[in-house]
Parts: sequence; C-alpha cells; structure tokens
Amino acid sequence: MRVELHFTPHQIDELALRDRTVVVIDVLRASTSIANALFNGAKEIIPVTSVERAVKISGNLFGDHVLRGGERNGKMIEGFNLGNSPAEYSEEKIKGKAIIFSSTNGSLALEKARFARNVAIGGFVNISQVVAFVQEVNQDFTVLCAGNNGMFSLEDSVCAGMLVQRLSEADLDDVAFSDAAIASGMLYKGYSRNLLKMVKNSEHGKYLTGIGQADDLAFCAGVDTIPVLPQLIGSVIRVKRDTEKAEPSKTPVIS
Amino acid sequence: MRVELHFTPHQIDELALRDRTVVVIDVLRASTSIANALFNGAKEIIPVTSVERAVKISGNLFGDHVLRGGERNGKMIEGFNLGNSPAEYSEEKIKGKAIIFSSTNGSLALEKARFARNVAIGGFVNISQVVAFVQEVNQDFTVLCAGNNGMFSLEDSVCAGMLVQRLSEADLDDVAFSDAAIASGMLYKGYSRNLLKMVKNSEHGKYLTGIGQADDLAFCAGVDTIPVLPQLIGSVIRVKRDTEKAEPSKTPVIS
Repeated sequence: MRVELHFTPHQIDELALRDRTVVVIDVLRASTSIANALFNGAKEIIPVTSVERAVKISGNLFGDHVLRGGERNGKMIEGFNLGNSPAEYSEEKIKGKAIIFSSTNGSLALEKARFARNVAIGGFVNISQVVAFVQEVNQDFTVLCAGNNGMFSLEDSVCAGMLVQRLSEADLDDVAFSDAAIASGMLYKGYSRNLLKMVKNSEHGKYLTGIGQADDLAFCAGVDTIPVLPQLIGSVIRVKRDTEKAEPSKTPVIS
Repeated sequence: MRVELHFTPHQIDELALRDRTVVVIDVLRASTSIANALFNGAKEIIPVTSVERAVKISGNLFGDHVLRGGERNGKMIEGFNLGNSPAEYSEEKIKGKAIIFSSTNGSLALEKARFARNVAIGGFVNISQVVAFVQEVNQDFTVLCAGNNGMFSLEDSVCAGMLVQRLSEADLDDVAFSDAAIASGMLYKGYSRNLLKMVKNSEHGKYLTGIGQADDLAFCAGVDTIPVLPQLIGSVIRVKRDTEKAEPSKTPVIS
C-alpha cells in the first residue's frame, strides 16, 4: 500500500485521482459539518462548488426536503438555511433532509476527487473510521487536504498526519509513504499533545475566532466524537458504514 | 515581517510574487549546484526552463565563455557540458564562465519568482547567508520550495524550516509566520538531528541514489559549507554578497 498526500487540492489534475481511493480532509469545517449532519440523520449531502449551482439544484424542493448549507469566507451564504458551523447541523434541523452544501475549500477538494473509486471524508472527529476504512480497502490511496484558499492549512495537515501515524503504528505489511505523507506524520507528532491549541493557533482557526465562530474550534478538534464515515458515492455524500457507537446515544462528546 | 511559504511552486501565480522578496529552495540539487558554481568563480548563471531555450541563448559563445548545465529526471541533457551534480561545478571547469542552467524543478521555481523584487537562492549549504539576507532586507518575504515534479519535497521543506527556525530564535520584533512556515519549522525540529539521513530517505534522495548520484546527497546536506548568496538579478543569477571566506574580487555590494 502506498500513501500519497497533497497539502492543497489546487494543483491536482482530477484525472490523476481517477479510480483511486481518496480521503478528503477539511477539519475547519466541511468534514466536521458533513460528519455531524450525517450522524444526526441527514439523508444525504450534495456537494457543489458554486452558490448558483446550489440554488439551481435545490429547486422546488428547497426548504421542505432540501436545505442549503455552506459558507463563503466562513460566513453563511444569503438564501441558505445553514452556515458551516458543525453544531448547526442538529437532528432537529436536518433529520431526513438532503443538504446541498457549498464551502470555499471542501467542495473544491471533493470536486477534484470526483473520478476516484472511493472517496471518504475525514477529520479529527471521525479519524478512527477513516483509519479503518483505508485498512479495509487495503490499496494505494491519496489524502487530499482541502487547505485554505489554495494555501497549506495546518489543521488539515496535522489531521492527515494522525491518519499516517495510526497506519505507521498499525504495523501493516508493505506500506510506503510519500514525502508529504511522512512530513504530515512528523507534524502530527509535533502537535498531538494539544490539538485544540494547534487548531486555535492555525490561520483559519484565528480567522474563525475573529468572525465570532470560535466555538467551532473545539467541536472540530474533538477526536472520534462523531463516529461516522461520510463517503462520496456518485455525486452524493452518504454514510456507507458506521460503528456500533453510532446508534445508542447519538450525542457527540466534545473533548 | 510576515513569512509566507509554498511547498511547491506550481500553484503560484507569478504576479502574486511581484515586488516581493523571495527565497527559492531546491536542495537536491539546483540551489547547491548554483551556489557551488558561483563560489568557484562562475561569472553568472542564466536559468531557463527549457532545453531549447538553453541551446538558443548559448549560441555561438557555447563552449568558450558559455557552458550549458542542468538535468532532466536527474540526468545530464544531451549537448550539455555539465549535469546537476554540485561537485561538477569545480573552479577548473567553470571559473569566469557563464552557465545556461536548466533543471526540472529549480528553473520553474525561479521563473515563478521573476517579477519579485529580490530573489535569493538557498539550501543547507548557504543557510546562514539566507538568514542574514532576509534579516537585512527586513520585509515580508516568501519561501518558494522547488518541490519534486509538482509534489512536496521533504528536503526543501526541512531546509525552509531551518530558515524559519533560525528567524524564530533570532527574537526579532513582530515576525509572523504562515501555517506553512510554522509547519516547516516543526519539520526542521523533527529532522534537525540528522539532516543527511533525512535527505537520504527523501523520495528524491532515493531516486538520485538509484541513478548513481548518491555522492551528491552528502554534498547537498552540508550546512554552511558554501558561504555565498546567489541572487537573481534581472534574468541572471550572480553573487551580490558573500562572506569573508570568499575571495576579495567577489566582494559584494549590498543593496
């Protein structure tokens, strides 16, 4: 198994990911919001890269069975029901609904992965699900960090490194890591003692704090608090698999 | 002072670097070869991105006052005098000559920086020169890692992190680092105890070993072994500044 990693999706040729297994990581906040929405019973998430497309495809069903969620520059989009704070995606608001979702970085990363064979969406909140997934698929895969407007983002890279580190520790036969994957593992080791502090000190963490979204940081830095694995199947994100932990309480605990 | 960093040059818009100070890092091997060539008395290095351009501009002077150097996929180019092993750029071969230089990654990074105000070229071999340069210029700057065919390269990133770490320790007033710069500093801390081992274990290090260029790795992992600062001035790389160890005739004018 060879593990490739890209710190930003912008330079990737979509066809380079064709038929591959891809893990998309957008800690702040698309991965976390998508996981929470599916954990809380959303029927599906439909990622789109433009606001216009979100409006177009939600069509006549908008507001009833279909909601619009996401952000531009961290803020809710006009005409949308939901922003990109994971806590907004509560059972009360989203159970049974389809959510058309558009965020600045996460949606682009998902678009880049559209020709892949398997696409899982991961963050700290479901890291063990992601580790189990790539071990189960058991083939070469690519980690695609969503980054921050085309730039490297610390929180995505450290989360990717947590995945790499878990695989390194799993003592699998014949796993090779690209330079970027090795580097992410080193970053995780450097920051693992205080992930919340790392998230708070990251550029996007500071930006979200500045626009009044600081509460999201602890939510997104929680490890294994939302035990679901969102997967992009066709053009729709659904839960293909969850653990025994998922059913009983359905209450994410934030560390 | 704000320190930005890009792990690969491919996604950068050239105009984003306009009028900035840029440090280009290509440890294996363009930075090291260029530094060694200028240290050993090359008159100037003219970086070009294509072999055709190298042949065209070397013209009638080729072989006498002008040499062609560089590589594609680590190997010497047909019709060139020099490859990209830094040791090839000996005083005997290159003193007083102009070298048209084209390498896979380094030349692209230099092209991306062509609208910058100041461009320095750095590696482990001249890291203290680079640190002194950015402190002297004392303004926001961008570190541009050459990467490896559009991918993250460990050795360039760790070298960039050495620069970041030196600046952090210098206790300067009011220095801010981007997420990527902070991450590079963490990578340097992780690998600082054995830079040669890191270079040997990097993807490009392994590749060069595989094609019989392993001797270059120790050369390129040496710290402060070549005390010159190559700078891109217009479309030509020259030494604008060097230390007391260099010859008096190469005396720098500091802008």
